[in-house]
Amino acid sequence: MTVQATDEQKAGHFAYRVTHESSECAARLGVIETRRGPIHTPVFMPVGTQGTVKTLTPADLREAGAEIILANTYHLMLRPGTAVLDRFGGLHRMNAWDRPMLTDSGGFQVFSLKTLNKISDEGVRFASHIDGSRHFLTPEESMRIQRSIGAEIMMCFDECCSYPATAEQAREAMERSVRWAKRCRVDHPPMRNGQALFGIVQGSMFHDLRRESLERTTEIGFEGLAIGGLSVGEPKELMTETLDRLMPQMPRQVPRYLMGVGTPEDFFLAIERGVDMFDCVHPTRIARHGAVFTRTGRIDLSAQKWQLDEGPIDPECLCYACRHFPRGYLRHLFKAQEILALRLASLHNITFMLDLMREIREHLAAGSFRAFRDRFLARYLGKE
Amino acid sequence: MTVQATDEQKAGHFAYRVTHESSECAARLGVIETRRGPIHTPVFMPVGTQGTVKTLTPADLREAGAEIILANTYHLMLRPGTAVLDRFGGLHRMNAWDRPMLTDSGGFQVFSLKTLNKISDEGVRFASHIDGSRHFLTPEESMRIQRSIGAEIMMCFDECCSYPATAEQAREAMERSVRWAKRCRVDHPPMRNGQALFGIVQGSMFHDLRRESLERTTEIGFEGLAIGGLSVGEPKELMTETLDRLMPQMPRQVPRYLMGVGTPEDFFLAIERGVDMFDCVHPTRIARHGAVFTRTGRIDLSAQKWQLDEGPIDPECLCYACRHFPRGYLRHLFKAQEILALRLASLHNITFMLDLMREIREHLAAGSFRAFRDRFLARYLGKE
Repeated sequence: MTVQATDEQKAGHFAYRVTHESSECAARLGVIETRRGPIHTPVFMPVGTQGTVKTLTPADLREAGAEIILANTYHLMLRPGTAVLDRFGGLHRMNAWDRPMLTDSGGFQVFSLKTLNKISDEGVRFASHIDGSRHFLTPEESMRIQRSIGAEIMMCFDECCSYPATAEQAREAMERSVRWAKRCRVDHPPMRNGQALFGIVQGSMFHDLRRESLERTTEIGFEGLAIGGLSVGEPKELMTETLDRLMPQMPRQVPRYLMGVGTPEDFFLAIERGVDMFDCVHPTRIARHGAVFTRTGRIDLSAQKWQLDEGPIDPECLCYACRHFPRGYLRHLFKAQEILALRLASLHNITFMLDLMREIREHLAAGSFRAFRDRFLARYLGKE
Repeated sequence: MTVQATDEQKAGHFAYRVTHESSECAARLGVIETRRGPIHTPVFMPVGTQGTVKTLTPADLREAGAEIILANTYHLMLRPGTAVLDRFGGLHRMNAWDRPMLTDSGGFQVFSLKTLNKISDEGVRFASHIDGSRHFLTPEESMRIQRSIGAEIMMCFDECCSYPATAEQAREAMERSVRWAKRCRVDHPPMRNGQALFGIVQGSMFHDLRRESLERTTEIGFEGLAIGGLSVGEPKELMTETLDRLMPQMPRQVPRYLMGVGTPEDFFLAIERGVDMFDCVHPTRIARHGAVFTRTGRIDLSAQKWQLDEGPIDPECLCYACRHFPRGYLRHLFKAQEILALRLASLHNITFMLDLMREIREHLAAGSFRAFRDRFLARYLGKE
């Protein structure tokens, strides 16, 4: 007689293991096991800001190969709100996405509302961008909302300082983030409600602050670790340098998530330094403006030059858009402001990103990552 | 040895046959055979104004059961224009719709541009709503553009007078429509370019004018006949009366198309009087404002009352939206102004219309049309 896991145990399942380490660089392959299925890393997570990846259905996302999507706590707390989310038993039961989700903490958006927020050690007071209603977001409140959303992975409520920041500003935000991380962990002990919680390393571009943040965050103990405060407008060299210094210090046994990163170049740069997870609105946002990825660089579908073009967006892509429509038609749809244009371009860009990640994983497994990176980037950047 | 049809013959194939006549009323079942497959009548044709049914892919339309879609000559002549359409070899090769299409003549839109058009017997001079550029649309030019689009069914260029019209206005428009119909037929003899051409009966609400229009249009000889100038704002009784008088005079051997009609009530009303074909932007247009059809009446998905509703739009519908999403989520998508809302509501409404037509055809075949009509309308109108 085998002992079956109880529903509760199943519900709370979360484990990460490294399945392969590159001999060429610090990159690794891994699997995050969750109650809603596995996530193969390195992974790109499409962003579903308001509970949907814009223009796309769960069926589209599955066909594109998505194993996990993001949702934004800030947006969902305001609309539809936790009363609605609780009645449905979480976002999965509203948006019909049955694979893993990850929620951010709401902090990043709240801090972006420059003129509207007031920060104290207790939390952040802010006014809704929708109706001006007043809200107070604390580490405990962020945990509560994220439990209502019910994603497999939750994020600590942190203060992400903008770039550039003085050493003093960066230290203050880092110290506060550590204090808040402790409160998050106290409020949300390991696998409460079946949900994992990730800590976030801050410290802006200051290596000593990053190191201290990493040590103190690691000490608290989280199911994964994220790097916040990068890809916020700093020069590429500073991001590279920060990752060069920080990544070797990151613990091996947890997934490492670089927040807000979403271009092919940055994927390679970060993966070879040991990053496992990425998210970004970039691929879907630029798609809605007609910009699509191809293996030979980004192109603007609304450009006159495609008017009579009979080829697909990218001849090597197998997404529905590339299998069916010539660029000349997609250009027409963009010029005519047809919603189908936004949908097809979004589907393509998400497919492109997920295909790229899949190829990266295959080449990591085969020991040919660097050769693939060089070949891919030469083609991709050559014509951009 | 069997004699194969040549590609040209295949390309030009068009035939209509009545497969069943109702014993209960003037309704009939039929099949229109075209080079791109059959159309089972009575049929609803979703409208793809600018070369796409808004928000939907060909795959969506096939899944919903569409056998034919419409495209608008006025919109396509301005954008992408015939130079582009000709280079691609027609709209089918741009929008990846491989089943039949029907194009209107451009006349209806041009005549709607009240302040911009100048009508003479030669044709209509108008300015583009997009960039103000000047154009001159004649019967011959409409035929030329419709050949560039390449639909299986083309429509005569006619003058549709608005409602209400005086007898004099109605006669003038009817006479001109007959003269233009002759020019269309001369320019586009039967199956030129493999495309069928339908004539249009005008005459506003005047029965003698309708009768004369029908006789003179039939005399010219077309592959099908449409009824124009109804569903243009007149009271329902007037439309009913006009159909009551006109339909018994319509020839039996051609498909009969009631232009611009698209509500369940009107389908029943017209089908039992012998109409075979319908088109309307209504189902997709109202969908984008949150209004969806259910078997118990139309509902507004953005209404507060659905906030916590866990049921599908219509429990009897099997479309992707109804199989996956609770009303509470769809309401959230509409409130959050997510494009996915417009897409799912459009898919549902098109599916609803096509399912209704399929059920009507089944009940016509089974001799239970009237019972079905009464049952359907009692439920549908009871709660509206």
